[in-house]
Amino acid sequence: MPHDPHIRLFIPGPVDVRPAILNAQAVPMIGHRSPEYADLQRRVIPKLRRVFGTAGRVFIVTSSGSGLQEAAVRNCVAHRCLSLVNGAFGQRWYEVALANGKQADDLQVPWGTAIRPEQLDDRLRSGNYDTVTVVFNETSTGLLNPIPQMAEVVCTYPDVLFLVDAVSAAGGTEIRADEWQLGVCLTSSQKALALPPGLALCSVSDQAIERAGTIPCRGWYFDFLQYDKYAARNHTPATPAISLMVALDAQLDDIENEGWKARFARHRRLMRQVHDWVTDRGYGFFAEDGYRSPTVTAVENTRNIDVGALNSYLRHHGMLISNGYGPLKDKTFRIAHMGDTTEEDISVLLETIDSYLAEQ
Amino acid sequence: MPHDPHIRLFIPGPVDVRPAILNAQAVPMIGHRSPEYADLQRRVIPKLRRVFGTAGRVFIVTSSGSGLQEAAVRNCVAHRCLSLVNGAFGQRWYEVALANGKQADDLQVPWGTAIRPEQLDDRLRSGNYDTVTVVFNETSTGLLNPIPQMAEVVCTYPDVLFLVDAVSAAGGTEIRADEWQLGVCLTSSQKALALPPGLALCSVSDQAIERAGTIPCRGWYFDFLQYDKYAARNHTPATPAISLMVALDAQLDDIENEGWKARFARHRRLMRQVHDWVTDRGYGFFAEDGYRSPTVTAVENTRNIDVGALNSYLRHHGMLISNGYGPLKDKTFRIAHMGDTTEEDISVLLETIDSYLAEQ
Repeated sequence: MPHDPHIRLFIPGPVDVRPAILNAQAVPMIGHRSPEYADLQRRVIPKLRRVFGTAGRVFIVTSSGSGLQEAAVRNCVAHRCLSLVNGAFGQRWYEVALANGKQADDLQVPWGTAIRPEQLDDRLRSGNYDTVTVVFNETSTGLLNPIPQMAEVVCTYPDVLFLVDAVSAAGGTEIRADEWQLGVCLTSSQKALALPPGLALCSVSDQAIERAGTIPCRGWYFDFLQYDKYAARNHTPATPAISLMVALDAQLDDIENEGWKARFARHRRLMRQVHDWVTDRGYGFFAEDGYRSPTVTAVENTRNIDVGALNSYLRHHGMLISNGYGPLKDKTFRIAHMGDTTEEDISVLLETIDSYLAEQ
Repeated sequence: MPHDPHIRLFIPGPVDVRPAILNAQAVPMIGHRSPEYADLQRRVIPKLRRVFGTAGRVFIVTSSGSGLQEAAVRNCVAHRCLSLVNGAFGQRWYEVALANGKQADDLQVPWGTAIRPEQLDDRLRSGNYDTVTVVFNETSTGLLNPIPQMAEVVCTYPDVLFLVDAVSAAGGTEIRADEWQLGVCLTSSQKALALPPGLALCSVSDQAIERAGTIPCRGWYFDFLQYDKYAARNHTPATPAISLMVALDAQLDDIENEGWKARFARHRRLMRQVHDWVTDRGYGFFAEDGYRSPTVTAVENTRNIDVGALNSYLRHHGMLISNGYGPLKDKTFRIAHMGDTTEEDISVLLETIDSYLAEQ
């Protein structure tokens, strides 16, 4: 085996996947134009609708979440996009828009600070934009943007599509894509849904599909109109990642057995468990109060511990956390508390970190 | 299990994957920025170089093969592309180029007929093109285009990049990307490499990378320059499909244990086994003589059998072949003889088809 013994992951993705779900991948192949495949997709779609809180379209794409960032801007930005940036993945989406030849402006807010609905309103009032991109839960900073309140603002601009990257949110906190009138809400498999990476998933509104129909250069691989056409037969335009689809089907069943509300409540409990430890040990939070993520906490490294050395110690004890992202390396460290992680898992992790600190 | 009992696949992808390789997917997750992941990619790359016959760059992308068709045209077509079309996947690549806003002309040749190097030369002489797209092995028609001879032509036009889709060729027949000076040679995991779908793989030449540097709107997800930058650290720009990568690593080891030459020879033997049956039973070949595929045979349905009924019978006996592709439905049927399929497998299949025919 290439990576034995198993290291328990408390990094913000890929997250640990339970053995039953890992094993679900190991089914014999089926044809992607077969009735067996159509049955698989037909079973998955209603469960995915509940992930996004939509009664409408959901698409399954073989790519990472960044692939759907590309899809969303190629299908939805007809004139000009406003990219909200308060972390690395908001910044990435802005760069993805530019790399695809889209006109885009960024609204930069300090990392760790939430974007206020008023800031968004100020920019939309210009009438310059037909799309807004935002990251729901910034994996880089442990910050949850106030999407419901932002959505209220965007709804007052009926021609503006609100595109939301819910990569480390979906499966860990509630999404109401229909109620919030999201144009696109996207996620990937390897975060709070606790699956292996390789699938990206999204809800797409009627308005977004109509917009796509007016845009000539949508590409092929991520063309929502192609996905929509094939979805009618429970197919995808190109060959999908079948083994990951089987795992998705199994995991969504297990999630629904836990219950969505129970799952979100567990994520909040894990968050509080980590928050209590952070406060008690004298660390700070990188994300501002009131906007901290239910799936990942970015701990301000106020005690200047050597994060690399801590992680070596943790690895020796069979677990791993994450250093700060990019410019936040060593200034923060990140503890993910998402997916199928339990209170017991978090307790063991925090006790092990305490043991390390006691030895310093 | 969603699709039990196992139906042995003789369809031209996804193909059957051996249990050891299916199980290889079921490893615990690792971080995609971890040393374990970099080791995995470092192990895979030299083996992938041997798939493509290159000492240069190979990239691993989470998508289907069509994703890399999109990548190749976005990164390589600066002015105008000539798309060679003699089957459904050649046609798709042409459409992918147009969907990405590229200037492209198609050279249409009747399906089942190989594209002649002279036809290519005639079109390139115009000086209108900086890229040529072609499908090595047309999965839709069972035809192998004469890539080495076509490559000789393209080499006489030093500014023209030759982009080759080797989706149902790679792993089943030899590719010499460096010797043939291919700009891009791409494949996907679920064909002759006998892996689950979800990964696309390609070789990319220096000249293709230089060209990409001159093209402003390459997008983000499929940007070769990003892949190249991350490859230096044995990483990918976005989170890769880790479980499929682990399966790829294991399967390439097994393929190298069989030996590349032995694997290609086995594919030729399977082809002859199917050809002998086709001739003996009085069927025809859809693809012209001299250009028939070593991985899939499109049988001309000269005896007008009911392909749907045949496949129902085969399914009852635990196996499946494929109907003709698109407009060739019922006019042809397709028997794939690629991947890890053995002579014994093919014998059992052909005997079962014979049993069906005897009952009519």
